[in-house]
Amino acid sequence: MPDSTPTSPKGDNDAFSPIAWRDDTLYLLDQTVLPHEEVWLRCDTPPKVAEAIKRLSVRGAPAIGVSAAYGLVVGLDQAPETDPGLGERFDEVSTLLMSTRPTAVNLRWALVRGRAVFEARRGDGRDAARAALLAWAQDVHERDIATNRRMGEHGAVLFEQGDKVLTHCNAGALATGGYGTAVGVITSGFRHGRVAQVWVDETRPLLQGARLTAWELDRLDIPFRVVTDSSVGALMSRDLVDRVVVGADRIAANGDTANKIGTYTVAVLAARHGVPFYVAAPLSTIDRETPSGDDIPIEVRDENEVTEVFGTRLTPPEAPAQNFAFDVTPNDLIAGIITEVGVLAPPFTDSIRRAFAQAEGS
Amino acid sequence: MPDSTPTSPKGDNDAFSPIAWRDDTLYLLDQTVLPHEEVWLRCDTPPKVAEAIKRLSVRGAPAIGVSAAYGLVVGLDQAPETDPGLGERFDEVSTLLMSTRPTAVNLRWALVRGRAVFEARRGDGRDAARAALLAWAQDVHERDIATNRRMGEHGAVLFEQGDKVLTHCNAGALATGGYGTAVGVITSGFRHGRVAQVWVDETRPLLQGARLTAWELDRLDIPFRVVTDSSVGALMSRDLVDRVVVGADRIAANGDTANKIGTYTVAVLAARHGVPFYVAAPLSTIDRETPSGDDIPIEVRDENEVTEVFGTRLTPPEAPAQNFAFDVTPNDLIAGIITEVGVLAPPFTDSIRRAFAQAEGS
Repeated sequence: MPDSTPTSPKGDNDAFSPIAWRDDTLYLLDQTVLPHEEVWLRCDTPPKVAEAIKRLSVRGAPAIGVSAAYGLVVGLDQAPETDPGLGERFDEVSTLLMSTRPTAVNLRWALVRGRAVFEARRGDGRDAARAALLAWAQDVHERDIATNRRMGEHGAVLFEQGDKVLTHCNAGALATGGYGTAVGVITSGFRHGRVAQVWVDETRPLLQGARLTAWELDRLDIPFRVVTDSSVGALMSRDLVDRVVVGADRIAANGDTANKIGTYTVAVLAARHGVPFYVAAPLSTIDRETPSGDDIPIEVRDENEVTEVFGTRLTPPEAPAQNFAFDVTPNDLIAGIITEVGVLAPPFTDSIRRAFAQAEGS
Repeated sequence: MPDSTPTSPKGDNDAFSPIAWRDDTLYLLDQTVLPHEEVWLRCDTPPKVAEAIKRLSVRGAPAIGVSAAYGLVVGLDQAPETDPGLGERFDEVSTLLMSTRPTAVNLRWALVRGRAVFEARRGDGRDAARAALLAWAQDVHERDIATNRRMGEHGAVLFEQGDKVLTHCNAGALATGGYGTAVGVITSGFRHGRVAQVWVDETRPLLQGARLTAWELDRLDIPFRVVTDSSVGALMSRDLVDRVVVGADRIAANGDTANKIGTYTVAVLAARHGVPFYVAAPLSTIDRETPSGDDIPIEVRDENEVTEVFGTRLTPPEAPAQNFAFDVTPNDLIAGIITEVGVLAPPFTDSIRRAFAQAEGS
């Protein structure tokens, strides 16, 4: 890890970001080796950025969006100074980044907006376009953090004193520009003295809960316990879960929510036990062009993620596996969607439409 | 592994048993190192038997019962030849074995019946008592296998051609005297040409599905795929599961069923998706002295089973975890209990009473 790349010292962990722009290029914290090592990847070419996204060195819908924004800047580093070469290079980089992950909508969101920024300045040549994209990417990054903090304030009031809150996967600072979505809401609830303890689903196969959410909560000094994903029913049967808050990879126009595999299971159990189930996500995760969850593409990842843990084979050799990376939680199982403009209530088709009208009007 | 201890060659795998009586003592297949190594533990003292049960070298309610039966025989090896020392020794061994696992009722079942055998012959001295116990233990072992085969025949008719069947944990030959309960039923369904494919929940934390059920199905040449426990909702959403069959560690008089952690979650999902959920277990797993699931003691195991896999730490150092070993599936989520005397239908309080009356009358 280069000396110049900061990590946040323990004690100021609310300000931690897994994405850093230093030495005029992009650094990403390699989340595949957390919690055991903190390695920052210098991503100074588009293939390096794309690879970091694809292999989940950086993951989480908002963090992918911010990384892709910076990736467009990096993409102009070796570009021809003027069109048509400049534009061709931009297209190539944008296509490469778009191909990395199919489910997170923030990726497309960033690339579409980045293109508009590029279009406005491409006539002034590479350096001007790059400078404009960098200013925009840094703004996307900062806004993402500010968005998460607002989300945290809106969400904090949903808790009651002494709440035990369960979360699945990692929707923390690591999954965003900083502060986190679901973990940000939980952090705000804890800072307000309402959240007493967090149940952390380990989140197989890649253990984002056991590895990443546990790492974050440890640094934030928020009490937590890790459980296997299969424990949620037992916890709820014993009245040990008061609320669930999870993030999202894509929310359809009707509120159906794609998130890490296993989220739907948690939602079904929450419904059976009368535990309110919340999704925390910025408006940029809501895809109004996707009518319902049936229309969200679900990534299928390598079987080895299931059959191996940290390179150790779990199953007999050659045993086949199935590895859906996400599932869809239907809107009827969701009590509210916590966004930067407030908590959206069912029916979500209406509340989502109003939220966008408000955001676009402001 | 001693040469004299047989493993079943591939091709005759329906006859495989993880428990062997050889050289006049007990050998148990060490299931903690499967599927990578096949190591047989020579358990020639009561502490070795108890330790093998406690550390899950042998696990699964029926296999624990059979092992405990043989454990009583081993317990008389160094015993005084006559009472009162003989009886004291028996009590001590029985208490030791009883202390190993709290949830599986077959353990108590075996120890209670073994005591009756011992009581009948203790007057004739150690050798006579030991011989009687050995004959009884071998009978328990053989009857368990026969019971499972009958269960398989009763259960096979529940499937329809082309069925994709999901199972959780391992209720196969490894969990029993041989042939298995849930896996036995699935095997019979496969042999009858009805079951087309098995979904194997990996079953965290100890991965009995990924390690043991996959190992068994591979040897049985039954097509299967391993999935994370968190995938069940996604599979059912896609209509990829036609039926669920699981084993049981204890069934209460009203049909409430304690089984490996995560079973309840599968049952709740099955109910939402209209997928029939079956429990396969011998009558010896039904505890009529336990009125309902609320009365079943649930073992809490070491946190390290959650925070480590094969000795590799998953979480940050010191991260706390919670490790309930079992959960309880309420009877209203169970379509039927497959036993050696037939498939019991709801309401289970009645069908269980009738099944015992029939078994005791026959």
